[in-house]
Amino acid sequence: MKFHKILIANRGEIAVRIIRACRELGISTVAVYSEADKEALHVRLADEAYCIGPKLSKDSYLNFTNIMSVATLTECDAVHPGYGFLAENADFAEICESCNIAFIGPSADAINKMGDKSVAKQTMKAAGVPVIPGSDGLVQDLDEAVMIGRDIGYPLIIKATAGGGGKGIRIAEDEQALIKQITAAQQEAQKAFGNAGVYLEKFLTGMKHVEIQIMADKHGNAVHLGERDCSVQRRRQKLVEESPCPVLTQEVRERMGEAAVRAAKAVDYSGAGTLEFLLGPDGQFYFMEMNTRIQVEHPVTEMVTGVDLIKEMISVAEGNPLSFSQGDIVINGSSIECRINAEDPDRNFMPAPGKIEFYLPPGGPGVRVDSAAYQGYSIPPFYDSMIAKLIVWAPTREEAIAKMKRALSEFAVEGIHTTIPFHLKLMEHPVFNRGDFDIKFLEENDI
Amino acid sequence: MKFHKILIANRGEIAVRIIRACRELGISTVAVYSEADKEALHVRLADEAYCIGPKLSKDSYLNFTNIMSVATLTECDAVHPGYGFLAENADFAEICESCNIAFIGPSADAINKMGDKSVAKQTMKAAGVPVIPGSDGLVQDLDEAVMIGRDIGYPLIIKATAGGGGKGIRIAEDEQALIKQITAAQQEAQKAFGNAGVYLEKFLTGMKHVEIQIMADKHGNAVHLGERDCSVQRRRQKLVEESPCPVLTQEVRERMGEAAVRAAKAVDYSGAGTLEFLLGPDGQFYFMEMNTRIQVEHPVTEMVTGVDLIKEMISVAEGNPLSFSQGDIVINGSSIECRINAEDPDRNFMPAPGKIEFYLPPGGPGVRVDSAAYQGYSIPPFYDSMIAKLIVWAPTREEAIAKMKRALSEFAVEGIHTTIPFHLKLMEHPVFNRGDFDIKFLEENDI
Repeated sequence: MKFHKILIANRGEIAVRIIRACRELGISTVAVYSEADKEALHVRLADEAYCIGPKLSKDSYLNFTNIMSVATLTECDAVHPGYGFLAENADFAEICESCNIAFIGPSADAINKMGDKSVAKQTMKAAGVPVIPGSDGLVQDLDEAVMIGRDIGYPLIIKATAGGGGKGIRIAEDEQALIKQITAAQQEAQKAFGNAGVYLEKFLTGMKHVEIQIMADKHGNAVHLGERDCSVQRRRQKLVEESPCPVLTQEVRERMGEAAVRAAKAVDYSGAGTLEFLLGPDGQFYFMEMNTRIQVEHPVTEMVTGVDLIKEMISVAEGNPLSFSQGDIVINGSSIECRINAEDPDRNFMPAPGKIEFYLPPGGPGVRVDSAAYQGYSIPPFYDSMIAKLIVWAPTREEAIAKMKRALSEFAVEGIHTTIPFHLKLMEHPVFNRGDFDIKFLEENDI
Repeated sequence: MKFHKILIANRGEIAVRIIRACRELGISTVAVYSEADKEALHVRLADEAYCIGPKLSKDSYLNFTNIMSVATLTECDAVHPGYGFLAENADFAEICESCNIAFIGPSADAINKMGDKSVAKQTMKAAGVPVIPGSDGLVQDLDEAVMIGRDIGYPLIIKATAGGGGKGIRIAEDEQALIKQITAAQQEAQKAFGNAGVYLEKFLTGMKHVEIQIMADKHGNAVHLGERDCSVQRRRQKLVEESPCPVLTQEVRERMGEAAVRAAKAVDYSGAGTLEFLLGPDGQFYFMEMNTRIQVEHPVTEMVTGVDLIKEMISVAEGNPLSFSQGDIVINGSSIECRINAEDPDRNFMPAPGKIEFYLPPGGPGVRVDSAAYQGYSIPPFYDSMIAKLIVWAPTREEAIAKMKRALSEFAVEGIHTTIPFHLKLMEHPVFNRGDFDIKFLEENDI
């Protein structure tokens, strides 16, 4: 089938990104917005827009009933959830399908299988995807935990099975710390996620966060589109992403890609998904988790492959086979993305919402800006602080860094604090320029 | 040698474009500006900026003495002239060289050889580049003109040898008209260009304007970078350009490219240059003129080849060999550029300078904006009316047109009239979509 109208169940730059793809495909768009987002760009750009509730996400962007009412009343064929909010909510995916509205993403079953981190790990292990040494599923009791600790060695990492995005994680340096923390971790997980299950993993050091973009259709085809190095993180939040990874060899790239395709096939995946791996200095990689949605950092993959991932998601959801095969995917040049947040780098990256008094994004060759900001726009304090993604492409990584510096230096955002000065300093850092930084880079370096 | 500081002898988007390239290369920039351009973006973005005279171009952007004074006092290694103003002024190129400041462009000799249209035609003919049938050089008298008319047939076109860019051109439908117009054309040319020389050419119909981008170094290497179809013209001014040309066969592309390289070598060309051809429906092409500078429409070539033409111009002027060979140049996908002018399409494209009250350029994948505009900027009435170049890239022409429509529809420029509505209508036009339009397209179709 061909979609005629899509509801975008999101806000900010990703809502704008999806509207752009729909418009290019000749598909009408329905935006939804909270009372705090009346003046948001996605509301202005969509063909139709409807308020779905008060400012807090739980009352608006997470409000199943209101969103589905709008989708039904406006006769939408499909819903695109973007990232965050309802993107990895299997119940929402199921409700969409039961209303005969396509959910642009994987099946509820695939979301569920990957959403439970310990089930996901078991599934991946069974599919022959390397996983981090640790407990075989959830830890039942303290004795088992101690046994595992003695078996695989310290430090160990305690993870909540319902966690994700850096939440619900503790590190135990030795047996004593493990004993002390495991019960606390279970209680915390119960409170935060409504699920007390935790599992153990070897705590690896010197690791890079390298993830593989995959795209799969409903006919059993799955293709990987190269990797993204997302090791520049602060408190487990990605700040800068790039493709290709500056230290990955072609041989390891192919092995990771093949593992990612196996992973996707193991859960009958369809749509865009990402396999997150830890990559060691020795070229060994370990499955961390699968994100069953489009990601913030998808543009760097688009820049080096020339594939429009949002358009492909829509096409796959329409039931079409993938528009490319593995052999068509060639990684060309180098792309970097900086997340520009409304935060004050001089005050510990405290969110700094407010009114944008002057706004001029950079332009010229090799520069892409994905943003929902504009001059005169007041950033509401209720949602995440990212106001723009600045993405560059150049033939080499060195040139891409030079271009990013140029683009950052001319990106004018006045009236609020942003992370632009932080990114400028980062682009000058010798370790970043060398490319062999690991996920502890920002913790261990003062930028 | 390596340049450390470059003076940009221009304004507007091309000055910004050159500043961007310099910054990415780690080269300092010196902007110059007229009294009307104090608030211009190129002044804000350059490392240094100096006023070089009053608002009128002749007193500022064409003021040799003031520009060279700034270049000397600020210890610039080189001058980039952009397009227009001094870009094809051989005297200026010579003065630069005599001051030991590199002129980023070809030699004064090459500019001269191509600047005189009748000499250029002779040179091209000698180099084996197909030229339009017509007089062998300048027409000496009326008798000769009549003889030529009888020989090659009507209609004929009368061109001023010192003209260019559509200026100094008349068409004679028959012998009577030729007799009547030739003296008038000579007088007009004398008045407009200080040179009464005119020559005759067969007036060809159903022709496309297709031009070849070339890049040459000082070591005898010359490479062509594919073509641009610039047939969408109003009063001989280009409005939309694209690469590749939608109707060009690979065989004709290669022949045109080879002819362009021969042309460049015939005048010991170095730097970026463009060979403009008329392309007939039969695949025959004829040399029109060579532009010995970077052109407004250079971005579409950059988008399909991945080559940064401004950086390459600088590198070549530094004395480096070309960074690529002919075999490296691959045309990938399709790119279109729309020139967004501050003009009122409903009032015969009358220039509409004024203050930009709201400005938000489009973004997202495959969209590039080259502009010197910003919110709050007042467009001065003294220079050309182009305020932005909107360039898109997509894997196919059809997708590029869809992307251009999307980008145009979200390009917000309030407070002044622009040609955005015109371009939106053009992108919907069946003839434009078919791609087989010729240079009379806009004359013959109401858009």
